[in-house]
Amino acid sequence: MAVYTEVSDAELEAFLADYDIGQAESFKGIAEGVENTNYVLATTRGQYMVTLYEKRVDPRDLPFFLGLMDHLAARGINCPRPIHGRDGNALRTLAGKPAAVTSFLQGMWPRRMTVKHCSPVGEATAALHLAGRDFAMKRPNALSVSGWRPLFEGSRRHIDQSLAHELSAELDFFEASWPKALPSGVIHGDLFNDNVFFLNERLSGIIDFYFACNDYLAYDVAVCLNAWCFEPDNAFNATKARALLQGYDKVRPLGDDERRALPTLARGSALRFMLTRLYDWVHTPAGAMVKRKDPNEYLAKLRFHRDVKSLMDYGL
Amino acid sequence: MAVYTEVSDAELEAFLADYDIGQAESFKGIAEGVENTNYVLATTRGQYMVTLYEKRVDPRDLPFFLGLMDHLAARGINCPRPIHGRDGNALRTLAGKPAAVTSFLQGMWPRRMTVKHCSPVGEATAALHLAGRDFAMKRPNALSVSGWRPLFEGSRRHIDQSLAHELSAELDFFEASWPKALPSGVIHGDLFNDNVFFLNERLSGIIDFYFACNDYLAYDVAVCLNAWCFEPDNAFNATKARALLQGYDKVRPLGDDERRALPTLARGSALRFMLTRLYDWVHTPAGAMVKRKDPNEYLAKLRFHRDVKSLMDYGL
Repeated sequence: MAVYTEVSDAELEAFLADYDIGQAESFKGIAEGVENTNYVLATTRGQYMVTLYEKRVDPRDLPFFLGLMDHLAARGINCPRPIHGRDGNALRTLAGKPAAVTSFLQGMWPRRMTVKHCSPVGEATAALHLAGRDFAMKRPNALSVSGWRPLFEGSRRHIDQSLAHELSAELDFFEASWPKALPSGVIHGDLFNDNVFFLNERLSGIIDFYFACNDYLAYDVAVCLNAWCFEPDNAFNATKARALLQGYDKVRPLGDDERRALPTLARGSALRFMLTRLYDWVHTPAGAMVKRKDPNEYLAKLRFHRDVKSLMDYGL
Repeated sequence: MAVYTEVSDAELEAFLADYDIGQAESFKGIAEGVENTNYVLATTRGQYMVTLYEKRVDPRDLPFFLGLMDHLAARGINCPRPIHGRDGNALRTLAGKPAAVTSFLQGMWPRRMTVKHCSPVGEATAALHLAGRDFAMKRPNALSVSGWRPLFEGSRRHIDQSLAHELSAELDFFEASWPKALPSGVIHGDLFNDNVFFLNERLSGIIDFYFACNDYLAYDVAVCLNAWCFEPDNAFNATKARALLQGYDKVRPLGDDERRALPTLARGSALRFMLTRLYDWVHTPAGAMVKRKDPNEYLAKLRFHRDVKSLMDYGL
């Protein structure tokens, strides 16, 4: 996306006066991220990110997101660390929007995902789950099963009959058969390649906690399976999946109940991203500022998981 | 704009191997600039900008632009300094596009222009003109008088009769009465507020030389008058103009011929930006990735200059 919210020099100066991070030396809007406006800020003290929260983020969720990043950073997870103002608050206002300053993470997200990324992603996901265990705040997953049907209903008049029939059957299945009582905790919820940084072939950080919530830990693993273990032609790569799952297991072994549930969770996660992408696709004008993501990619992944018989299909 | 060209990790790594500037530690597409794709690159050695030249820049002009930045930087002008590869070349290829690495300039462009910016802008423009005097390469100004009528012809069926009549009369006037034989040299050609950086109230650098060319030096001053000396409601601010012109005069005094020509040059410069904006406006779909700029702003400026009787109207 382009920068959504312009910040004037006077607004930035007044904003930074409430922090103890030096004076601005450069301030550049960056083109990554879809939900919020992000600036790279260089000051006399160092580099920071400034995020302005746009309308797709509910301001009531911001204390959860910022509190979680504080919590995880304090437990050694490499994630953006909220910088608190002189009054102790990390959540402030800039150009009329809720805004926060965070530390700047080194590294680059891998444009081309290879098998060497998968074990580190699995390990980092498990480490995040362990570090989040004693985080006190709660945020239900608004994009779990009960959130899917409204997305479908809001899109169905734009899609053809046979696809509508297939998606409707999927919803019926999940509403009846979603796994129950799996180990829960804080999940990232959106561990796609553009949210994971690598530096010199090592995972150097995780960003973008704005879908984080409480849900089954194994559901986060399912999201990763979809995000990291398919090839550009949507073919599943079992070598990548094995590396990812073994990486996770090294740090937090999945229980038998989680392993049994994984194909359903992965199929559900594919439906979730299929539906959010479909909803955005049919509601975003072609050529708009926001780049639309292809829902069909996730339809193909959904169909793959529907045919999975056991974890052997995931390379284990 | 958003990033036009995505660069993969492998492409970036191969590209940087031809330079002696260290390994990449972060690489972020920035949302500023309309013509090209720009990334902020942090390496183990420092910060740089990486620019990929998109289709609106003619590759044959790139040696002029990069050579000029080299020339000006060597003469103490704070502008992006092209970084040369191990083989001596500054112009290379990245992700299939012509590309260059330049130094990173500190500072921020002023979102709100005030009178305190105007004298430094005048001084810096004059210093740039003096530093460019012995630059050997030439590039004619493709957007001077002879380039205007094609823009008008390409837009006229989209505008109403009375505006077409007014613009046509302007073109007749300029084709007959454009000043002749004024002092010429290298001009920046696009000294708008987003191309001038300030740091601690001092001008810290000038960027974006991709409209630079050979033309009347006073034409660059005319562009600055239009870019810096009008209020958001299009009212002319003579105090700003006086500061700008006095700043310029301090470093390179305008000759009498240049002073006499200034109202015509300013009116012509207003027409030039009016026409390029109009052309983009009528040829860019609403809601496209590129933010369209309002041509009417420059129509108002054109009309102001048409009524200027002497430099007293510019505050001198």
